[in-house]
Amino acid sequence: MSAVELAPAAEAASEGAVKTKKLVIVDYSGELEKTWATMILATTAAAMEMECTVFVTFWGLQTFVKDKKRITGSNWMQKMMSFMQRPGVSHRKLSKMNFMGMGPWMMFQLARKYNVSKPKELLEMAQAMGVTFLPCQMTMDMFGLKVEDLIDGLGEPVGAATALQLMTEADSTLFI
Amino acid sequence: MSAVELAPAAEAASEGAVKTKKLVIVDYSGELEKTWATMILATTAAAMEMECTVFVTFWGLQTFVKDKKRITGSNWMQKMMSFMQRPGVSHRKLSKMNFMGMGPWMMFQLARKYNVSKPKELLEMAQAMGVTFLPCQMTMDMFGLKVEDLIDGLGEPVGAATALQLMTEADSTLFI
Amino acid sequence: MSAVELAPAAEAASEGAVKTKKLVIVDYSGELEKTWATMILATTAAAMEMECTVFVTFWGLQTFVKDKKRITGSNWMQKMMSFMQRPGVSHRKLSKMNFMGMGPWMMFQLARKYNVSKPKELLEMAQAMGVTFLPCQMTMDMFGLKVEDLIDGLGEPVGAATALQLMTEADSTLFI
Repeated sequence: MSAVELAPAAEAASEGAVKTKKLVIVDYSGELEKTWATMILATTAAAMEMECTVFVTFWGLQTFVKDKKRITGSNWMQKMMSFMQRPGVSHRKLSKMNFMGMGPWMMFQLARKYNVSKPKELLEMAQAMGVTFLPCQMTMDMFGLKVEDLIDGLGEPVGAATALQLMTEADSTLFI
Repeated sequence: MSAVELAPAAEAASEGAVKTKKLVIVDYSGELEKTWATMILATTAAAMEMECTVFVTFWGLQTFVKDKKRITGSNWMQKMMSFMQRPGVSHRKLSKMNFMGMGPWMMFQLARKYNVSKPKELLEMAQAMGVTFLPCQMTMDMFGLKVEDLIDGLGEPVGAATALQLMTEADSTLFI
Repeated sequence: MSAVELAPAAEAASEGAVKTKKLVIVDYSGELEKTWATMILATTAAAMEMECTVFVTFWGLQTFVKDKKRITGSNWMQKMMSFMQRPGVSHRKLSKMNFMGMGPWMMFQLARKYNVSKPKELLEMAQAMGVTFLPCQMTMDMFGLKVEDLIDGLGEPVGAATALQLMTEADSTLFI
């Protein structure tokens, strides 16, 4: 292509054509079914070659604590809150119909029957496919979570400003 | 307009001026008040001549089961889950202050008093105004829902990839 | 810059470079932790010189009732609903682990320890920094809320059409 043809407008148009779509998910709730939704959308976006960033905040961060950690935090309040919630991707509860764990068990049975992967498998898949998970620094402070409490392969903890920058540059942002 | 005037940049600008705004709603929760929010936003968007697509997933899909269906699904787990939830747009519960149905009853009284239509009426209005409702295929599989269980006039069931495509092309996406 | 250099495409690019980013938050839930998320994002956006508009609707509007108001509404249903919920930014409850107020108390202790402001302080800060809070007219009608029931400094009540206009013009919209 000659320099003459490469007018600013044409250049902008061709850039648009190859531009990678960006998806930002705010993973806020920590509930089983919303964790599932986040992981399904993140892996699908990665498979579609979108650039997917998941900002993990508040209850959502409990999902990214190592499954074997039982109690986290450095003071009694933080310890009590982690104990009440049971952190880890394999211990998420349904927001309704949890029935002491029977709801999630049925969900997992149905998922297996219909070849839907569990959240834990989808999380590992998402990480392997290049989805970026960014823990929220303020949440880590408030719940007393340390980097070593969290699963491997997460990005550096970030604040609300970085999250907002990503959101306003994305093609779509989902607060889940 | 002559070819000379129709420079790429000008063309882009004139396209921008007449472009229909696109709104995508992910109807996820199935709760009465969120169903209401979805329907009010969808009908208003349609009235403003926006192109509105509602991706109906997880608990949200219960809203689109026919009101008279009492139990759906093909195995005991799916049947039990549908029984516990009571599907159908007229049977949504409030996420708080449900009080065995008294909360929704009060809501409907107040809505009638202030000329706010019920979710069922708004849903019919939305369909008449051209809002597209797309059921999530994976949710249909997991809950054992068949096309004939759902109300008429919905689009073909779609997967997460189609939903993401729509979201990243929309001017705004709401995960409700 | 000469007129020749100012081709349409270049003009568009330079406009893009100085454009203020727009963030729209739909503050829907009224829960303590989501109110907190809204206020942290709104104040951070304002500090980043983004134009931030918060559309306050449904349960979220309870947050903007004056703290000292105990009961609002003009009929018994509205009064009962306000009584059950305890309106005001200082009386928000956690969606889980509320434990009769002990959960929020622990949250406030932890927040103070880590220098995170309370929602009430963040709300005042957001207003001082120019964040616009727009109450939803339909919600005011249904709950019987009058302008004098709400805190000072809010914008004029608006409908769904205005909210949708803002959302589809924003760089990012969060339904919280």
